[in-house]
Amino acid sequence: MSGNNQKNVLVTGAAGFIGTHVVRELQKTQDEYNIVALDDLSGGFIENIPQGVTFIQGSVSDANLITELFTKYKFEYVYHLGAYAAEGLSHFIRRFNYTNNLIGSINLINEAVKVGTKCFVFTSSIAVYGAIEPPMTEEKTPHPEDPYGISKLAVELDLMAAHSMFGLNYVIFRPHNVYGEYQNLSDPYRNVIGIFMKQIFEGQPMTIFGDGEQQRAFSYVGDIIPLIVQSPTIPGALNNVFNVGADKPYTVNELASKVAIALGKPDHPTVHLPPRNEVGIAYSDHSKAKSVFGDSPHTSLDDGLEKMAAWAKTTTIRPLKPFTAIEVGKNMPPSWIKYLDNQ
Amino acid sequence: MSGNNQKNVLVTGAAGFIGTHVVRELQKTQDEYNIVALDDLSGGFIENIPQGVTFIQGSVSDANLITELFTKYKFEYVYHLGAYAAEGLSHFIRRFNYTNNLIGSINLINEAVKVGTKCFVFTSSIAVYGAIEPPMTEEKTPHPEDPYGISKLAVELDLMAAHSMFGLNYVIFRPHNVYGEYQNLSDPYRNVIGIFMKQIFEGQPMTIFGDGEQQRAFSYVGDIIPLIVQSPTIPGALNNVFNVGADKPYTVNELASKVAIALGKPDHPTVHLPPRNEVGIAYSDHSKAKSVFGDSPHTSLDDGLEKMAAWAKTTTIRPLKPFTAIEVGKNMPPSWIKYLDNQ
Repeated sequence: MSGNNQKNVLVTGAAGFIGTHVVRELQKTQDEYNIVALDDLSGGFIENIPQGVTFIQGSVSDANLITELFTKYKFEYVYHLGAYAAEGLSHFIRRFNYTNNLIGSINLINEAVKVGTKCFVFTSSIAVYGAIEPPMTEEKTPHPEDPYGISKLAVELDLMAAHSMFGLNYVIFRPHNVYGEYQNLSDPYRNVIGIFMKQIFEGQPMTIFGDGEQQRAFSYVGDIIPLIVQSPTIPGALNNVFNVGADKPYTVNELASKVAIALGKPDHPTVHLPPRNEVGIAYSDHSKAKSVFGDSPHTSLDDGLEKMAAWAKTTTIRPLKPFTAIEVGKNMPPSWIKYLDNQ
Repeated sequence: MSGNNQKNVLVTGAAGFIGTHVVRELQKTQDEYNIVALDDLSGGFIENIPQGVTFIQGSVSDANLITELFTKYKFEYVYHLGAYAAEGLSHFIRRFNYTNNLIGSINLINEAVKVGTKCFVFTSSIAVYGAIEPPMTEEKTPHPEDPYGISKLAVELDLMAAHSMFGLNYVIFRPHNVYGEYQNLSDPYRNVIGIFMKQIFEGQPMTIFGDGEQQRAFSYVGDIIPLIVQSPTIPGALNNVFNVGADKPYTVNELASKVAIALGKPDHPTVHLPPRNEVGIAYSDHSKAKSVFGDSPHTSLDDGLEKMAAWAKTTTIRPLKPFTAIEVGKNMPPSWIKYLDNQ
């Protein structure tokens, strides 16, 4: 690990769920990287930042901070994972969504262009596709239907424009329904598996929107992290978009049953809430990723839930931390309205 | 014009080029409207605001101001025309572009949802299409290639999401290469016809990027304004996207020659600058607009330039007002770099 070979890399959202995995994998596999871990701790936790990295508490929305960091470190690679990833809630927090998820990304893109960053890795989302016929392939036309998906698509397009104008290389990943260790169990708006686990721990019924027959392919975090981490050094990956995640879709009802089994409470009850405005069936095709990255592990939902459950049992469930700066309260699911204190 | 029948309507960018035309047409045709004209005067001019409207100097980016205005006036219709419409420059002012053009629009959409606005009219742009095979039709998949076009597409998608979630009606127009009376002649980055006229008045050669064979269909402002103004009251227009503008494309070389003739200087010289990153041929199909709005005037380029020239001769050319808050100076056209004072 000589100072001469060191490459400065930036990981945003480093204290979050995907971020902490990326930082740990970088530490494990890339000796020569000097990792700067940025997080505003709005959704992530300081405990998720391992020893040996430079932690900066701050937001990608803080343009001055971003300029300072790039000026100081001239990052070779950027892993931009920071986002407020609440698809359903984004209808009600439009301005926050675009400020955090789009303008924050733009601050990074501007500075990456200026310092000549060699690769900008961005985690987009399956949400960019909207309600198209599954399976989603990268060739299908994105038509996002919520502000979260729109902000992700805008960043994707902006990276393509920046590549074309300035030669900034990018790799875009569209993961979906990722779960696993270090997932935030205290967020009532997102991460259905985390919500179910918390409800089981607290003796509450698992809450399912609508009839629970909506289908998703739940992706074990350990299966996608290596692809994200390696991508800047794989020439075939540069300036491409990749779906990543599990192939097999399950209904939310099936998921609830499996989560209950994983936590040793097979008879834990569920309760159905009014349906919300969401896509019915969403799963994506991963043959493009396979062709570039080769075969990667495919952890089954049962095995992945078992690993997550083992972790969840040893973790401290933090107090509920609802998002309260709601901009528009109209048509919110009643189960969310109770968290509001400012409408 | 009784108080009971009065409808409050908001026009953003009202002191700008399209804005002043929309306000004047509303005054001429819609007696019962109480017009609130918003503009931050960054690109528009106070003289463009006619008597008889309520003028508010402010920006759509000022969320508190927007909330105040909607709370007070509960706008029935919103004509959102305000934008910083500099396609080519947007690569170099990414953050400003998205803040002004996207976050500003989001502030309006949030408040329109809250007060139950009946129709939100939005002027998007042909820039959303990017480099697709012309003619552009509304069915083709948008793939914008610059931050300006990306911000317009994001607002379009957000309006569709807001319609689906909250029932907010919208009408989206994608005009292209609009010119005519009240165009800003003092902006060095946009509006090629205005730039040419100013250069002729000042005895400078007309500056053409590249070989001048790039084609555009230049649209006379008077032909598109009635469609925009009427749209909220035409049921077939609601929740639709329309290309609007002229059908016939001309090269920039042909345009230069026609502008010179219109100003009575047929031999005025041109000078070619290095090409910039722009779409080669862009013109769009207008049959969808025709099917909903019926036949509308199609002023020829010669006639339109004659009208604009007559106006331009009587107007005061203001001092050059370049945009100086450039975020990224890399790869800017040399002819623009001279305006920078902060890079």
